[in-house]
Amino acid sequence: MNIRQQYMTLLEQLVAIPSVSAMETHLPEIATIIANEFRKLGAQVIYDDTYFAPFILAKFLSRNPNAKTLVIYNHYDVQPAEPLNLWQSDPWRLTAHDGKLYGRGVDDDKGNLTARLAAIAEYLIENNQELPINITFIVEGSEETASRYLTAYLAKYQDQLQADLVIWESGGKNAEDIIEIFGGNKGIVTFDLSVTTAANDLHSSLAAIVDSAPMRLSRAIATLFDSLGNIAVPHFYDDVVEPNDREKALVQALPLTRESLIAQHGLTVPLYSDRNGDNLKETLYFKPTINIEGITSGYNGNGVKTVLPATATAKLESRLVPNMSPDLTLQRISDHLQAAGLSDIVITKTLGQPGYRSDMSDPEILRVIDVVANYYHVSPVVLPTSPGTGPMAIIHQSLQAPIASFGVGYAGTKDHAPNENIRLSDYNQHIDVIKALIKRYEL
Amino acid sequence: MNIRQQYMTLLEQLVAIPSVSAMETHLPEIATIIANEFRKLGAQVIYDDTYFAPFILAKFLSRNPNAKTLVIYNHYDVQPAEPLNLWQSDPWRLTAHDGKLYGRGVDDDKGNLTARLAAIAEYLIENNQELPINITFIVEGSEETASRYLTAYLAKYQDQLQADLVIWESGGKNAEDIIEIFGGNKGIVTFDLSVTTAANDLHSSLAAIVDSAPMRLSRAIATLFDSLGNIAVPHFYDDVVEPNDREKALVQALPLTRESLIAQHGLTVPLYSDRNGDNLKETLYFKPTINIEGITSGYNGNGVKTVLPATATAKLESRLVPNMSPDLTLQRISDHLQAAGLSDIVITKTLGQPGYRSDMSDPEILRVIDVVANYYHVSPVVLPTSPGTGPMAIIHQSLQAPIASFGVGYAGTKDHAPNENIRLSDYNQHIDVIKALIKRYEL
Repeated sequence: MNIRQQYMTLLEQLVAIPSVSAMETHLPEIATIIANEFRKLGAQVIYDDTYFAPFILAKFLSRNPNAKTLVIYNHYDVQPAEPLNLWQSDPWRLTAHDGKLYGRGVDDDKGNLTARLAAIAEYLIENNQELPINITFIVEGSEETASRYLTAYLAKYQDQLQADLVIWESGGKNAEDIIEIFGGNKGIVTFDLSVTTAANDLHSSLAAIVDSAPMRLSRAIATLFDSLGNIAVPHFYDDVVEPNDREKALVQALPLTRESLIAQHGLTVPLYSDRNGDNLKETLYFKPTINIEGITSGYNGNGVKTVLPATATAKLESRLVPNMSPDLTLQRISDHLQAAGLSDIVITKTLGQPGYRSDMSDPEILRVIDVVANYYHVSPVVLPTSPGTGPMAIIHQSLQAPIASFGVGYAGTKDHAPNENIRLSDYNQHIDVIKALIKRYEL
Repeated sequence: MNIRQQYMTLLEQLVAIPSVSAMETHLPEIATIIANEFRKLGAQVIYDDTYFAPFILAKFLSRNPNAKTLVIYNHYDVQPAEPLNLWQSDPWRLTAHDGKLYGRGVDDDKGNLTARLAAIAEYLIENNQELPINITFIVEGSEETASRYLTAYLAKYQDQLQADLVIWESGGKNAEDIIEIFGGNKGIVTFDLSVTTAANDLHSSLAAIVDSAPMRLSRAIATLFDSLGNIAVPHFYDDVVEPNDREKALVQALPLTRESLIAQHGLTVPLYSDRNGDNLKETLYFKPTINIEGITSGYNGNGVKTVLPATATAKLESRLVPNMSPDLTLQRISDHLQAAGLSDIVITKTLGQPGYRSDMSDPEILRVIDVVANYYHVSPVVLPTSPGTGPMAIIHQSLQAPIASFGVGYAGTKDHAPNENIRLSDYNQHIDVIKALIKRYEL
């Protein structure tokens, strides 16, 4: 079995473990396996299981005392696989089909982790076990639940951490099949809205005189948005840092179009930018959001149940741009509901982290761009931020190094959704380009 | 075992059968048992299993060829028992506790059925198996799902049906513990709202530019109401028949107060009548409603899932007053959503039936009122309509007789909700008063 086959077997093993951090399942189990893989490759490993999801710090040291340090950040936790009925294969079994690999976490983030391990393994064998840079892996297990303990963890190991460049856990090719490099991501605050309107579910004849809980919750949610898709919460946008000209230009250079977005996701409602005239790309990358992850109330079985539900709950999230505070954002939403006469809606914060954007003209970032461009024979799409969320702000706070995000994904990857998949060719290219990046430091 | 114990055993047997018409479970099974009970008592039984829920027509004939005919309408189907975790005893086991009987259907409607059977059984034994009136039971199994086949069934047996008075399936004592007699009920149209906004659930970073399905559904629901609790659908109230002075007076004589309603149900939000200044009782009895029975979308498990749900569904119902058409009402709701820019919300009608109000000065109704007043030593509360729904309009259309509704329930009965219960004393009183009504026809 060659090195790549060996790490494909590891990926198969990792996908088979439903390491869902939201459910707190199988986290130490998978972390132990990964830590051992680092040890096998010769890394110094610090395995810290103080937290519900253990952290792995794995250091590959160069023999060159002046070597720079590359930090690679990955995570072994995944999103839940539900709704299970929409998967065309078992989400917990790595399934190869038509040149693609399917399974929960195959992109986000187990595939990225094993590709990078394979790259280092191959590089070491091909280069007499020598590295021109120090490579430090930080692997956590709570990325999908807002990296709850990452701040505390990084503080604890602050004196052992140092970096010139950070390679981020995620990324890949866009809808035009061009490799992208991100330098930032949005922050997030997640929260539940819940309301109780009576001691029990009531006979629905009482709907003549009392609100139901789902009606009040629906109203609360509806008040958060105007009909154009703007967020109607007063002061919500107050702290938004407008993108600078370079950031705008990078985003405008994106090949993304409204037509490709609509086709790719099968969208059936007008885009906000089609309604409010805003710039599509700037909206996607530089505007904060509010999203409803889920809502439930009352009877949802077969047939009819003439009941007036007394309780209703929704899971919401707000994605934040740099300079927006998770807690202050939530406070503004709370104030808004209060002002709208919906003070009986109970808000419970679940998770929060701020956003971050790298300086995309940093020399280390430019080096990455160059290596990627040379390898793929195409200029990568370079973006100051991803529209998604991750703990970049926390990592940057600790390491004070610029961050570049690129990985094994592509536009059809379906992170967080059923049938998450990657293309085997992208996976192998990522192994190659990580090796090429290491090699560049030989110079 | 005396007669009442015998029929209590039957009630125990019936409650143990989860005859949920919404799930179409156990309906022929329970109908067969009930038909046999009628046969045991000497009734002529026509058991019609053409429909998913068999109908039972059971006739007890008087030897007096000039005897009037009393029709008693009951049903053996029940609402689902969910949410199961809120029951303090097994919903499918008749449980006696503190003078009360608990179980799904113990009031609605199995308790009413067995009490009436017990009344006839006792009357026959105490009166040499002779009846001063003909008594015809119509027992169906789809009352909780809008009596889907009742119209067709009644048409089929039209030449065998005749009535001077109809005793309805439900009723009981109010919050002041006074027996009530209803002469009408609201109609209903039930429907699902559903929306699909994308081919798959999306990564929630896309919330910057696209609506989620739960957001659009919440908006659709919110547009149905104004902040005072009025229904904001244009023309919704156009066909409402205003109550006449007698009907208003009957409703105003109700001991119901806002304080008692709030206390009884543990209501935590202001009543509509507190907000819009309308008359509480007239609103409850004479105004149509829209209610959300249930809503579901996206991820509702533990923790957080950063997903933008592509589908959302809600179950709604509108209760109608006489002269409102189920289909036209639904059309108006559809037109409203269309006008609100929500034409992607798909409306699916599930059930519909019109409302009805009896003339509460009919001599047969006055006789019932007098019997009830004499038995309970108190003037019953007489109401032209219940705030709830039932197929009175269908029955009235066929039988052309006034309808009186009173039964074994009380204010704490919790029909359709967890811990449905009746008081044993009310149950026995209902047996007594049905016997007294039969006896009155001896005169």
